[in-house]
Amino acid sequence: MNAEKIPDIIIGRLPVYLRALQRMADNGIKTTSSQELGEHVGISAAQIRKDISQFGEFGKQGTGYSIAYLLDKLREILKVDRIWDVVLVGAGDMGHALANYQGFKNRGFHIVAIFDNNKEKIGEKIGEFTVQDAEKMTESIKAANIKIAMLTVPAPAAQGVADKLIQSGVRAILNYAPISLNVPNNVKVQYIDPATHLQRMTYYL
Amino acid sequence: MNAEKIPDIIIGRLPVYLRALQRMADNGIKTTSSQELGEHVGISAAQIRKDISQFGEFGKQGTGYSIAYLLDKLREILKVDRIWDVVLVGAGDMGHALANYQGFKNRGFHIVAIFDNNKEKIGEKIGEFTVQDAEKMTESIKAANIKIAMLTVPAPAAQGVADKLIQSGVRAILNYAPISLNVPNNVKVQYIDPATHLQRMTYYL
Repeated sequence: MNAEKIPDIIIGRLPVYLRALQRMADNGIKTTSSQELGEHVGISAAQIRKDISQFGEFGKQGTGYSIAYLLDKLREILKVDRIWDVVLVGAGDMGHALANYQGFKNRGFHIVAIFDNNKEKIGEKIGEFTVQDAEKMTESIKAANIKIAMLTVPAPAAQGVADKLIQSGVRAILNYAPISLNVPNNVKVQYIDPATHLQRMTYYL
Repeated sequence: MNAEKIPDIIIGRLPVYLRALQRMADNGIKTTSSQELGEHVGISAAQIRKDISQFGEFGKQGTGYSIAYLLDKLREILKVDRIWDVVLVGAGDMGHALANYQGFKNRGFHIVAIFDNNKEKIGEKIGEFTVQDAEKMTESIKAANIKIAMLTVPAPAAQGVADKLIQSGVRAILNYAPISLNVPNNVKVQYIDPATHLQRMTYYL
């Protein structure tokens, strides 16, 4: 298994398989087939078999996949067999929604701090969190060796905050600001921009 | 230009180009090159030229692209040279964040109604909106011929709501529920699940 050799598009499908398998496990299902999994995620059985086989032989001809075993393997491959601390920067509406989001549970992530530079937001309580002064962000991230950040600041502020995050040691940014970030090669960025996602669909309407 | 023949992965990059070009235009820039655009979006100049050339000859050798012209063309291709009415289903934290989101402006979308089935939420004011009873959703969508929905309901409710939306005529769903939806071939779904996006990056850490 060589991280450099697996195409990113395959890596991108693994979390979708993981989510569907987790859901089957939650429903008490013990085994599945690439056919059944495919129906859940809208991807062909052949593609699923091919994707998973990149990492080893996890299923048996005729009996399919043990869900518990495949879950373990996928979590290990995606490195979510542990809990990653995550910082959230930007305590606006989207920051509030993410701070209260229940969907991170059991999926490898734990928000540990929320930062904002707006004096009116610093000190505000959001669920279990107290919004902290962005001035202290660099120090906190370095001290806790945090590698992952979610960015929900306005577009004009996003690049500057990203630069600070990266200088502090962050290597993965989930960016909600509607702007492309310039980052070094050793930093990963994923984008969540609802307008971009909608525009990708209107083409087909 | 044949909609069936352009790979979806290319369609997926066009909104990113559009967003970067819009930003350049907002900053008063009139022309750009595939090189410069590539630096903004983190995609190679060759890839950008190849993607754009699928739809015609929009740039000139040596002088590059007129941003205004390319913006017009991309908006036309993506069908966001008009305003699409969008319904939002689910008035929880994420629904609130989307209702208040300023990023849809000038990008082709306008939220026209918010629905929820929770009696405590029906009638609630969110910005300019009043949350409506989900019982009236089908009727409203049909009457207004709405084709696009954003789904921010809990995972167990998502498939049922999606089925109703599709029966009402919706053909594009932006799904925030952390679950894959089963939809007919003539319906597009895009997924926004922050945990899935994060898991795609931890692989590389």
